[in-house]
Amino acid sequence: MTATATLAPSPVMPTVDFERDGVQHGFLRLPYSRDDSAWGSVMTPITVVRNGSGPTALLTGANHGDEYEGAVALFDLARSLTADRVAGRVIIVPAMNYPAFQAGTRTSPIDRGNLNRSFPGRPDGTVTQKIADYFNRVLLPMADLVMDIHSGGKTLDFVPFAAAHILPDKDQEARCFAAVAAFAAPYSMRMLEIDAVGMYDTAAEEQGKIFVTTELGGGGTGRAETIAIAKRGVRNVLRHAGILADGQAVEKAPGRWLDMPSADCFRFAEDSGLIEACVDLGQPVRAGDLLARIHPIGRTGLAPAEYRAALDGILAARHFPGLVKAGDCIAVVGTVED
Amino acid sequence: MTATATLAPSPVMPTVDFERDGVQHGFLRLPYSRDDSAWGSVMTPITVVRNGSGPTALLTGANHGDEYEGAVALFDLARSLTADRVAGRVIIVPAMNYPAFQAGTRTSPIDRGNLNRSFPGRPDGTVTQKIADYFNRVLLPMADLVMDIHSGGKTLDFVPFAAAHILPDKDQEARCFAAVAAFAAPYSMRMLEIDAVGMYDTAAEEQGKIFVTTELGGGGTGRAETIAIAKRGVRNVLRHAGILADGQAVEKAPGRWLDMPSADCFRFAEDSGLIEACVDLGQPVRAGDLLARIHPIGRTGLAPAEYRAALDGILAARHFPGLVKAGDCIAVVGTVED
Amino acid sequence: MTATATLAPSPVMPTVDFERDGVQHGFLRLPYSRDDSAWGSVMTPITVVRNGSGPTALLTGANHGDEYEGAVALFDLARSLTADRVAGRVIIVPAMNYPAFQAGTRTSPIDRGNLNRSFPGRPDGTVTQKIADYFNRVLLPMADLVMDIHSGGKTLDFVPFAAAHILPDKDQEARCFAAVAAFAAPYSMRMLEIDAVGMYDTAAEEQGKIFVTTELGGGGTGRAETIAIAKRGVRNVLRHAGILADGQAVEKAPGRWLDMPSADCFRFAEDSGLIEACVDLGQPVRAGDLLARIHPIGRTGLAPAEYRAALDGILAARHFPGLVKAGDCIAVVGTVED
Amino acid sequence: MTATATLAPSPVMPTVDFERDGVQHGFLRLPYSRDDSAWGSVMTPITVVRNGSGPTALLTGANHGDEYEGAVALFDLARSLTADRVAGRVIIVPAMNYPAFQAGTRTSPIDRGNLNRSFPGRPDGTVTQKIADYFNRVLLPMADLVMDIHSGGKTLDFVPFAAAHILPDKDQEARCFAAVAAFAAPYSMRMLEIDAVGMYDTAAEEQGKIFVTTELGGGGTGRAETIAIAKRGVRNVLRHAGILADGQAVEKAPGRWLDMPSADCFRFAEDSGLIEACVDLGQPVRAGDLLARIHPIGRTGLAPAEYRAALDGILAARHFPGLVKAGDCIAVVGTVED
Amino acid sequence: MTATATLAPSPVMPTVDFERDGVQHGFLRLPYSRDDSAWGSVMTPITVVRNGSGPTALLTGANHGDEYEGAVALFDLARSLTADRVAGRVIIVPAMNYPAFQAGTRTSPIDRGNLNRSFPGRPDGTVTQKIADYFNRVLLPMADLVMDIHSGGKTLDFVPFAAAHILPDKDQEARCFAAVAAFAAPYSMRMLEIDAVGMYDTAAEEQGKIFVTTELGGGGTGRAETIAIAKRGVRNVLRHAGILADGQAVEKAPGRWLDMPSADCFRFAEDSGLIEACVDLGQPVRAGDLLARIHPIGRTGLAPAEYRAALDGILAARHFPGLVKAGDCIAVVGTVED
Amino acid sequence: MTATATLAPSPVMPTVDFERDGVQHGFLRLPYSRDDSAWGSVMTPITVVRNGSGPTALLTGANHGDEYEGAVALFDLARSLTADRVAGRVIIVPAMNYPAFQAGTRTSPIDRGNLNRSFPGRPDGTVTQKIADYFNRVLLPMADLVMDIHSGGKTLDFVPFAAAHILPDKDQEARCFAAVAAFAAPYSMRMLEIDAVGMYDTAAEEQGKIFVTTELGGGGTGRAETIAIAKRGVRNVLRHAGILADGQAVEKAPGRWLDMPSADCFRFAEDSGLIEACVDLGQPVRAGDLLARIHPIGRTGLAPAEYRAALDGILAARHFPGLVKAGDCIAVVGTVED
Repeated sequence: MTATATLAPSPVMPTVDFERDGVQHGFLRLPYSRDDSAWGSVMTPITVVRNGSGPTALLTGANHGDEYEGAVALFDLARSLTADRVAGRVIIVPAMNYPAFQAGTRTSPIDRGNLNRSFPGRPDGTVTQKIADYFNRVLLPMADLVMDIHSGGKTLDFVPFAAAHILPDKDQEARCFAAVAAFAAPYSMRMLEIDAVGMYDTAAEEQGKIFVTTELGGGGTGRAETIAIAKRGVRNVLRHAGILADGQAVEKAPGRWLDMPSADCFRFAEDSGLIEACVDLGQPVRAGDLLARIHPIGRTGLAPAEYRAALDGILAARHFPGLVKAGDCIAVVGTVED
Repeated sequence: MTATATLAPSPVMPTVDFERDGVQHGFLRLPYSRDDSAWGSVMTPITVVRNGSGPTALLTGANHGDEYEGAVALFDLARSLTADRVAGRVIIVPAMNYPAFQAGTRTSPIDRGNLNRSFPGRPDGTVTQKIADYFNRVLLPMADLVMDIHSGGKTLDFVPFAAAHILPDKDQEARCFAAVAAFAAPYSMRMLEIDAVGMYDTAAEEQGKIFVTTELGGGGTGRAETIAIAKRGVRNVLRHAGILADGQAVEKAPGRWLDMPSADCFRFAEDSGLIEACVDLGQPVRAGDLLARIHPIGRTGLAPAEYRAALDGILAARHFPGLVKAGDCIAVVGTVED
Repeated sequence: MTATATLAPSPVMPTVDFERDGVQHGFLRLPYSRDDSAWGSVMTPITVVRNGSGPTALLTGANHGDEYEGAVALFDLARSLTADRVAGRVIIVPAMNYPAFQAGTRTSPIDRGNLNRSFPGRPDGTVTQKIADYFNRVLLPMADLVMDIHSGGKTLDFVPFAAAHILPDKDQEARCFAAVAAFAAPYSMRMLEIDAVGMYDTAAEEQGKIFVTTELGGGGTGRAETIAIAKRGVRNVLRHAGILADGQAVEKAPGRWLDMPSADCFRFAEDSGLIEACVDLGQPVRAGDLLARIHPIGRTGLAPAEYRAALDGILAARHFPGLVKAGDCIAVVGTVED
Repeated sequence: MTATATLAPSPVMPTVDFERDGVQHGFLRLPYSRDDSAWGSVMTPITVVRNGSGPTALLTGANHGDEYEGAVALFDLARSLTADRVAGRVIIVPAMNYPAFQAGTRTSPIDRGNLNRSFPGRPDGTVTQKIADYFNRVLLPMADLVMDIHSGGKTLDFVPFAAAHILPDKDQEARCFAAVAAFAAPYSMRMLEIDAVGMYDTAAEEQGKIFVTTELGGGGTGRAETIAIAKRGVRNVLRHAGILADGQAVEKAPGRWLDMPSADCFRFAEDSGLIEACVDLGQPVRAGDLLARIHPIGRTGLAPAEYRAALDGILAARHFPGLVKAGDCIAVVGTVED
Repeated sequence: MTATATLAPSPVMPTVDFERDGVQHGFLRLPYSRDDSAWGSVMTPITVVRNGSGPTALLTGANHGDEYEGAVALFDLARSLTADRVAGRVIIVPAMNYPAFQAGTRTSPIDRGNLNRSFPGRPDGTVTQKIADYFNRVLLPMADLVMDIHSGGKTLDFVPFAAAHILPDKDQEARCFAAVAAFAAPYSMRMLEIDAVGMYDTAAEEQGKIFVTTELGGGGTGRAETIAIAKRGVRNVLRHAGILADGQAVEKAPGRWLDMPSADCFRFAEDSGLIEACVDLGQPVRAGDLLARIHPIGRTGLAPAEYRAALDGILAARHFPGLVKAGDCIAVVGTVED
Repeated sequence: MTATATLAPSPVMPTVDFERDGVQHGFLRLPYSRDDSAWGSVMTPITVVRNGSGPTALLTGANHGDEYEGAVALFDLARSLTADRVAGRVIIVPAMNYPAFQAGTRTSPIDRGNLNRSFPGRPDGTVTQKIADYFNRVLLPMADLVMDIHSGGKTLDFVPFAAAHILPDKDQEARCFAAVAAFAAPYSMRMLEIDAVGMYDTAAEEQGKIFVTTELGGGGTGRAETIAIAKRGVRNVLRHAGILADGQAVEKAPGRWLDMPSADCFRFAEDSGLIEACVDLGQPVRAGDLLARIHPIGRTGLAPAEYRAALDGILAARHFPGLVKAGDCIAVVGTVED
C-alpha cells in the first residue's frame, strides 16, 4: 500500500525466525516504557511450526482478553503440534491482546484498547495500536488462512458457532464459508457486519485471506464442551486447508446455519436493573415472545420492564451478568436457515 | 440471650410495621456517614405480607451480592404476593447484602464484608456487621421458617440444589430436610459444614429455626432454567409450611440426593494460569479422572498441570473464570446417594 | 462543509423521530463497547416536542456534568411541555454529557473528555468526541435557537448571569444579546472568549445560530433561587423566539450588565493551601482590595499569601473548594456597565 | 477511670511543651508505618499560647476534614495570637483529623475513620482511633473550655449556628449555653443528640468541660461571611471565658434560637436522582410545604418524587450535591424559639 | 498459655508434614474468600528439610513484602539444601507475608496489614492476623532457632547488619548475640526496641527462642553484595547451631558493632519536599553535621530546611525516595562500639 | 519551520520575562481544566538569571519525574546563582515534567505521558504534549547549550555518566562531547540511540544545539555522591561554555569512556519472578558470565532462570526492583574504551 509505505517500522521484535523449519516457542517483544518499568516490554507468546514451503495458517485467540476457548485450544495446540504433521507453516498466538488476557478483561489494561476495533493500528500509537499494526503489516501478509477464535467474554453468552462474512469477492467468500463448514461447530453463522471499521476480520479479508471467526460460548469461562469444539474446529480447518497432515479426516458435526438478517435481531435495554432471563440460549422464540424482564432494584413492589422478540428464530446470544445497564444488548435472536 | 442483652440497640430503622396486616413495601434504613453523604443511609428494600397470626417465613436473596436466582425470585414474589394468599407472615428481603448487590460483588464495597461470615454481627461494627446484627437480633427471632437462596456467584458454578445441614437436634434436622425436599430442586444436598463460624445458616439454626439454603447455578448470571427453579422452590416451601395458601400442591420434581463426605471432594489449584475444564457440571467422574488442566500463560510449549478426582461422583461445582489462581477451588465432586 | 463531507456517519442512533408531531421521550443511543458490557451503549435521554413547521430550539444542560440548574430546568420542562403550547419544535437534552452527569463530574468518566472543549468532535473518536460530533453535524443544523445552560460546577461559583459573545456578524450578535436580555437573569454578561477553540458555543455560532449561554451559580449544587432563574429564563427565551406560545409575556427582571474587559479580571493562585475568602460573590471591589488569602497548611504560624483585585468591579466568580492548588483561578472581577 | 488505666500510653509525641509560657508552633507526631514510608508519621500542626496559670481553652477545626470555617479561623488565630493577650492557655489544633483535612474529605483517607464517631479511641487502634485517644486522654483533661468548629462539609449546608447539648448536669449545661450565646452566631441551637455514641462532644461533656460546637455553612467551601462569623465567635468565647484579655467586649449579634424537637425534623430520600431544591436555607416553611423534588435521571418524561415538611419552622440544613442517593438526608427543618 | 487455649484452631492448612524426613516443598494454604474467588486461598510456599531428631531452625524472609535479600537467600536455600546435610530440621518460608511479597509492598494488599506489628495475631482476624497467629501458635513452638531476614524496603536504606535485642533473660540474650556474631554481617547491632508491641521478634523471644534479625540494605532492591551477605549469614548461623552439617566452618567477616542508644539517633522531617542527601550510608558524622536538606518544590528560590545529626556515629539508615513527607524518618545515626 | 508555522500558539503563559536582566523566579502556567479544578493550571517553576547579551544555557531536571539528581542540583542552583556571576542567560527548569515530579513517577499522572517520547509535542494535545511543544517552539530556540540531567528512576540504576550522541554534523558532535568531558562525571558515554523518535535530545540536536545528557544513578533516590556529581557537572559545563563566570576552573575528575556498541549490551527477562543480582554496577564482566538469576515465586524448589552477558565490559545499568517482569531490561553491559 502506498499509504503504509511511509509508516515507521513496527517496534515489535520477534524472538522467533518465521522462515526456520521446526517448532519454535518465543515472544513478540514490544517495548513499553512505564512507571513500573522504564525499559519494560509486552511479551506476547508465539509459536511457529514450519515444515517446508506450503501455505501458512495464522491462528489467534484472546483478541478480546476475556474469551477463553481459543486461548485454551491454541496453548494446547502450540505445545502438542509437531513439525512432521505440518505441511507449510502454522503461526500460533494464543493470546493476541496479551495484556488484556493477563488481566482477564476485554480491553487492554494499558490503554483500554479494544484490539478488534484498532485495525489497521499504528507503529507509533498506543500499545494496542502497535499490536494491531504488527499483525496488519507483518503477520497477516505471511498468512493464507486466518482463524480468530472468539467467545462472548464476561458480559455476553453465545450458542457456539463458526462464522464468515458476506464479501464483495464471491470466490473469497466461498472459500471462507467452506472453512466455516469444515470447523464443524454446532452452529454456523452468515454474518453481515453493520460496522466493520477497525476489525481484524476486515483487515484480513481486505488482504484477500481466508478468514474464519467464531463465538463459542461466553461468560468469561470455558466449558469442557465448548473447549472441545474449539480444539476440534481448529484441527478440522487445518486439515481442510491441507496444512495439518495427520492423516485424519475432518471430523464432521451436524450443525445448523443461522442468519442475522437485520438490526431487529438485537434487543437493547432502556432500563437498568436486575435482569430476569425468560429464555435460554438455543431455545426457539417467536416474534412477540418475552425474552427478558428488567426489575428495578431501588424498591420492591414495582413492575419490571418487558423485552420481547421482534422476529422468529432461536436465542443466539444474551447479556450475561445478573445486573444490566440501560444501553446493554440483552438478547440476539438468530434466524434459522431451512 | 444474656450475652446480647447488653448490646446497644440496632441502628437499623425499618419503614415497615411488621405487625400490620396487608402488603407493605419499605426499607431497612441504616445510617451510614461517609465522604459522599455525611448523613447518608443504606436503604435495603423489604416487603412484609401479613395476614393474621400464622407462622412467619423469612426469605432472603443476595446474601452474597453476585448471586441472582434468589434476588429475581424474591423481587418477583414481593411484587406479586397478595395478603389473601398468605396465612401468617412472609418477610422478603430480596437483596440481603444490598450494597454488595448494587455493586454486583460477593462482598460489600463499603467494608469488604462477607455477610455470610459476619454473624452474629455487631450494632456498633461495620455496615455489614450491623446488617448481620439486625437479622440476628430482630428478624430471625420473628421467623419460624428461614430460606436463604444462594448461587455460585461470579467465580463458582454449581449444579442446582437445595440443602440443609446435619444438626445436633435431629427433630429440627428432619424438619429442615423435609423443607429441602419440598423445594424440589434437581439436586438435594446433605451438608456437613467444615467451618460454620459466622454463617447466617448457623445463626438461624442455633435459634431453632427451619433453615433451607440453596446453590442454584452461578457465574454471576441467572438462566431462565435456574430462575424457574428458584421461583418454584420458594413457593413450594411456603406451601409446604402452610404459609402460602393458594390451593396449589407442592410441585414435585424428580431430584437426586448428593453428599459431600470429606475434604477429598475439593480440589484446590497449586498453580496459576489458564484453566482447561475437562468435565462439565453434572457429569459423572471416577476417582483418578482428569477434572481440569492449568496451562502456564507466560510462554507457549510448557506442560499443563493436571488435577484429578479423588473419589467417584458427579462434578457438583467448579471454578468459573477462565483464569485461575493458586489456592482457588477448581472442582467439587459430590457423591450420589443410592 | 467540504471537510466534514468525508466523515463517516455518526454512530449515534436516536430512538425519536425529529420530524414527528407531538411529544416523544427517547434516547440518543451511542454504542460503547467496554469491559463491563461488550455490546453496551451510552443512552442519553432526549425529548422532542413538535407542533408544525415553526423554528427549532435546541436546549441543553449538563454540558459539564456537575452543573445542575440547566438539568433540573430541562428535565422539568421535558416532562411538562405539551405540544399544543409549541409553535415549531423544541429539542431538549437535559444532560448533554450524560456519562459525566451520571458520575457528577465535570468531565466524562469514560475518557475524561471536557465536552465543551471537544467540538467539532469525531465520529470515530472517543465517546465524548462522538457526542460532540453528533451535536455538531446532526442537532445543531436542525436548530434556529440554541441555549446551553451552565453553572460553575463543583469548583467554581458565579453570580447568576446569561451571556452571549461578541461576534463578527453584528446582526447575529444583536439577535443573541436580545435573547440574553429575554432570559432576564440577575446579571447579563458580554463575553469575549480568549480561547474559544473546541467550544460548543463556537460551533453553534459558526453555524449562524442564535446562541445563549449562562452561568447560574455553582459549587456542584442548585439552590431554589438559581433553579427558578433557570426555569424562568428558558421559558422567557422560548416565548421571545415565538416557539413557546403559552400566551404569557416574557417575565422581566431588573438585571445588571457585566463585562470582562481583560485578563486582569482573573487572579490565579501561585500557592497551594487553605483559602480564606475575603469578599463574597456580588460584592463590590476596588483595585488593590484583598480578595483572598491562602494559608499554608503544613505548620501553624506562617503568614498567608495575599491576592488582590487588579481592577474595580464586583466579585463575579470565585474558587469554591476550601483547599486551593497553585494554578487555580481564585477570583474573577467583572466590571459593571453604566 | 479504672477502665483506661490499663491502656497503653498514647503513641503520639508532641513537639511542644504544654507547660511552657509563650507561643509555640509544633506538631503532634503520630508514627504511621505504611507502604510509602516505613517509618513515617502523621504530623498534626498544633499551637500552644500560654501566659501564666489561668484556665485552658482547647480549640479545634476540621474534626471532619472538609469543613473549613474552623480551620481558617484557627490557622489565623494561631498565627496572630500573642502571649501577652492571654490569661491562661490556648491550645489550637486547626485541623483535628489532619489526614482528612489534607485530603479534603470528611473521613480519613488512611482508615476511612470518622473522627467524631471514634471516641474514646484506642492507643493501639487505627490512626483515627489513636488521634481520638490522644484528645481523650491527654488534651481534654488539660482543658476547661472546649470549642469544636464544624460546618456542613461537602454534602450538607447549614444556616450558621453555635450549639450546645441538653445535659444531665444542669449547671454544666447552663455554662455551655452561656458560651454559645457569647459566640454570637446568627443562630443558636439547642441540640438533643439522638445518637451521641463516639462523639468528641460527648467525650468532652463527660469530662465535665464547657463544650461549644457549631455548624457554620457547608458545601465544602467557606464564604467571607461565615469565616467572619467563625473568627468573631472564637474570640468572643475566649473573651467570655476570660482567657483572651484584649480589652475588647464580646461582640454581640442579634441571633435566633432554634430547636430540633424530634426526628420529624429530618427528611430522608427514598429515591436516587437529580434533586430540585424548592426552599433555600433560612426560609420559613410550614408542615406540608414542598421541600424538594427528586427527578429520575434514566429517562425524560417521568414524574419527580416529592418531599414535604412535617412541621413548621425554617430550613436549617439541606443536602448539598445536585445528585442525591436513596437514604441521604435531604432537609432539616428547625423550629424557631420566639 | 491459658489465654490462647480458648482460641479457635488456625484455619491454615499445610500441605507438608513437619514430622517427615527428607525434603518437602509445599504450601501453607489459608482460605480467603473474596470477590474474585469465592473459595480462594492464600498459598504461601514452604520448604521443610528434616533429618532425624535434632534442633529446628525456622527461617523467614519478606516479613515485609518489599525486602528482598532474605527472600532470595531462602528461595535459593530451599531449592539447594539436601536432607543429608541437615541434622534436625530446617523450616523455610522465603516470603512470610506472601500477599505483600507478590505485590512488592511492605504491607499486605489484602488488609494493609504490617505483619511485623500483627503478633500474636488472631485465627478469626484478617488475613495478616491469621498468618501471624499460625506462626505464633504452630511454627514458633516447633523452633529452637528463629532467623527473620529484613532489609529497609522501598522507603529506607541501611548499612548491612545482623541484630538481636537486649532481653530480660541474659542467658537467652547471650545465645542470641552469639548467633548474630556467627551471621558475620559487616555490622552487628545491639537493639533496644522502643516499641516492640506486635513484633514477630517479641513473639519469638517471649517463647524463649534464639532470635536473629537483620537489616541488609533496602530501597526495594537487592544488590549482589547484600544478597551474598544474606546467603552466607544464613548458612553461618545454621552451622553455628549445628543444624547445617556440611563440614564447613562459619565464614567470619570483620564486622563492627553498632548501637542505637536513644531517640536522638532518629531525625524526622517536619517539611515535605525534595530531599538532598548530604551524607551517604556508613560515613562518619559528628553531632551538628548536616545530614540532609529538604527543598520546597512549589517554587524556585526558597531556602531548604536543614537537618543535622544530634550525636556522633555513622549514618546507619536513611530515607530512600527522592521526595520526603513531613513525619518521615530521614536519617538514623548509629553509634560505633570500639 | 514551515510545518510548525501553522500551529496554534502555545497555551503556556510564563510569569517571567526572558529578556529582563537579573534573577527571576516564576512559573510556566499551563491551563488545565479538570474535575477538581475547572479553571486550574499546571504551574512549573522556572528561574531565569540574565546578565547582558551572552549565550543562553537551558538546564532541566526531572524530564522523567522520578529522577532526582538533576532536580536537586537545579533547585539548588536556581536559589544560589546570582546575576553577577552570569555572562549571558541561564534558564533553569528543575522539574521539566512537573506533574510527574510531584507524583514521583516516571510519566505524568495526568495523561501517562513520557515527556522524553513526546517531542515535538502539540499545542492542542495532552498536558505532556503541550509541555513538549513549549520547550520545542519557545525555550529550545532561545538556547545555545542544553543540559538535561537524567538518572535511572525507580526501576533502573546506572553507573554515573554524562553522555552525548553520535551526530551527522561532526562539528556539533565535537562540541557536544567537549561539554560531556567538561561535566567530568566518573564515566562518559558515547551513545548511538537505536530509537530517538520523540526524544528531547533529538529535538535539541536537530535545532543545532550543544546537548548534554546524563544518567547519574537511579532507584528513585539521590545519594550524596551522585548529587555532588550533578552539582559539580552543571557548574563545570556552564564554566566551560563561558556562561558561569565565577573565576573558578572546570573541576576535573578522572573518568572512563564507555560505549554501547550493539543491542547485545541489553539483556531482557523472559521470565517473571524474584531477581537475584549476581554482579553489581561498575563491576567487570566477561561474555558468558552470569548477570542475574530469576527465581519463580509460585513454589519453592524450582530452578531459577539464568541470564548471562553477551560481551565483555562492565555492568553499566541494571533492573532495580526486587521483582522483575518478563520483558524488563535486567542488565546493560557497557564496553570500556581504553
